[in-house]
Amino acid sequence: MGEGITTRLTKAFDLRWPVVCAPMGGAAGGALASAVSDAGGLGLIGGGYGDGDWIDAEFARVNAPVGCGMITWRLNAALLDRILAHAPRAVFLSFGDLAPFAPRIHAQNIPLIAQVQDMDAARAAMDAGAQVIVAQGTEAGGHGASRATMTLVPEVADMIAARSPETLLLAAGGIADGRGLAAAMMLGADGAVIGSRFWAAAEALVPGGLHAAALRATGDATLRTRVPDVARGIDWPKPFDIRVMRSDGTEGLHGAPEAMSDADRAAWRDAMAAGDARMATPIVGEAVGLIRDIRPAAQIVEEIGQTAAGLLDGGWSNAAHD
Amino acid sequence: MGEGITTRLTKAFDLRWPVVCAPMGGAAGGALASAVSDAGGLGLIGGGYGDGDWIDAEFARVNAPVGCGMITWRLNAALLDRILAHAPRAVFLSFGDLAPFAPRIHAQNIPLIAQVQDMDAARAAMDAGAQVIVAQGTEAGGHGASRATMTLVPEVADMIAARSPETLLLAAGGIADGRGLAAAMMLGADGAVIGSRFWAAAEALVPGGLHAAALRATGDATLRTRVPDVARGIDWPKPFDIRVMRSDGTEGLHGAPEAMSDADRAAWRDAMAAGDARMATPIVGEAVGLIRDIRPAAQIVEEIGQTAAGLLDGGWSNAAHD
Repeated sequence: MGEGITTRLTKAFDLRWPVVCAPMGGAAGGALASAVSDAGGLGLIGGGYGDGDWIDAEFARVNAPVGCGMITWRLNAALLDRILAHAPRAVFLSFGDLAPFAPRIHAQNIPLIAQVQDMDAARAAMDAGAQVIVAQGTEAGGHGASRATMTLVPEVADMIAARSPETLLLAAGGIADGRGLAAAMMLGADGAVIGSRFWAAAEALVPGGLHAAALRATGDATLRTRVPDVARGIDWPKPFDIRVMRSDGTEGLHGAPEAMSDADRAAWRDAMAAGDARMATPIVGEAVGLIRDIRPAAQIVEEIGQTAAGLLDGGWSNAAHD
Repeated sequence: MGEGITTRLTKAFDLRWPVVCAPMGGAAGGALASAVSDAGGLGLIGGGYGDGDWIDAEFARVNAPVGCGMITWRLNAALLDRILAHAPRAVFLSFGDLAPFAPRIHAQNIPLIAQVQDMDAARAAMDAGAQVIVAQGTEAGGHGASRATMTLVPEVADMIAARSPETLLLAAGGIADGRGLAAAMMLGADGAVIGSRFWAAAEALVPGGLHAAALRATGDATLRTRVPDVARGIDWPKPFDIRVMRSDGTEGLHGAPEAMSDADRAAWRDAMAAGDARMATPIVGEAVGLIRDIRPAAQIVEEIGQTAAGLLDGGWSNAAHD
């Protein structure tokens, strides 16, 4: 294997590596997305809850083709048009019904990437004509649901093979290095969506205190909870909750987030903004235990790609195994 | 790659394939364990809660080298000696403190396989001198905890590399076919422990009604719960619960298993024995969505091995990807 890894994804999007940076709301701005695309992956601005001014400003920072991700249940037609006006490389939608938005995206010939968390959502994404389906496991940081990457990816791969073989498939959740990317390929994916590892990139819009706390953590330090959503007063629909790092300040609250006082909510919000990891809950997944430094995104892309290429080219049988 | 897959595991145990059949309590008897070993994997009798007479009877059925698995917190010295008297190929311990039992197992020169669910348990297993560590993800059927296979395996691999590089590592949870086995190798494992796929073997001690229900299910049909343990009156320690298939009869009970009436408990136990899947909760993991037939264990071992060998030998880039 020479330069890069060739899959259906890299051919469709003209990439060097089958690596997509997750559109982490607020954390993945134009600088991060642009750096990932420039390094041969696909970068996505994290549009999150839909602050149009912020999204416009982040698109103004890019100097490579990038896409944009949105929380589907918070999207509306006007905001979608505002995003499409930037001619994004792709629109990435997760958490909710795609059907109201897919025709408009298709009409503009923009690839639609649909992230799903279970088999019903996978079927709906195919029915809506998504060109790429992302099977997101519960180990992922941020919002998600209960299925794990290890089983959801091959099961969606089988559904794609039976119903819509031209649809591409990406794995998301728990992938932070070349081992995870290579594993995703074995499970039947055409590439991987990577969040936490890029959350820990130098270009990510993350306070230094939260970065420092994440570097100290093992993968045991995270949990799925409703605390951040209750603290922000955002009423997420079922079955979604959010994976974050535990902290001393939130430890007693996960079991009954509705019991948060106004002071608790304010303390959490202030701590997140200030990067106070004692009270805040950094939004990372179980893969945080595989992250040991904060580095420029281009180096992360290259290391993940080269490691995966080596493993896929027979390296799996050398390093740890013999 | 010719016949079989060579890893540190296959060399240490003289196997053709790096496949271990999980010691599923009550379901993995001598016939299943023996069939897996005879096919070139490693079979393990599922000693579960420690019925010595049942274990003796199942060892009497084997005609190949097999090991025995036990729930560590239910083990005692007398029962361990009774198992060691069978000269098992390995002792597989999960869920609890290994330290009281490891010296006796080491003294007999029996390999100790220790299954762990988080990083603290992985460290304890190394300290106890386990020759093989199994990193078990939450997607696994049966008892377990919250970490997912995709992140726990590489994180434990890194800990092993730093602390105890001669220790072998297996992945468990969500692996039911050659794709999962190949993915496990990429994550740094020397092989995989496979449960649900062998639960659906012809030799497994499982009522036909439960097998039939599992074949109809997708991977979305399971959840982690305490219902079966409450129904049996078994007080499992934290952090463990059990992944099973939902059923109509148990659907309302998972949120508050303590609310089960005596009639609910009796109905669950009767349904499990009779194979009535409307009320029972088949003990399988998320990988149930990848299982489409009940077959002899030897065929399952061979298919998993051959598929993984093909993927590892470059097949990943052909089938779905080009």
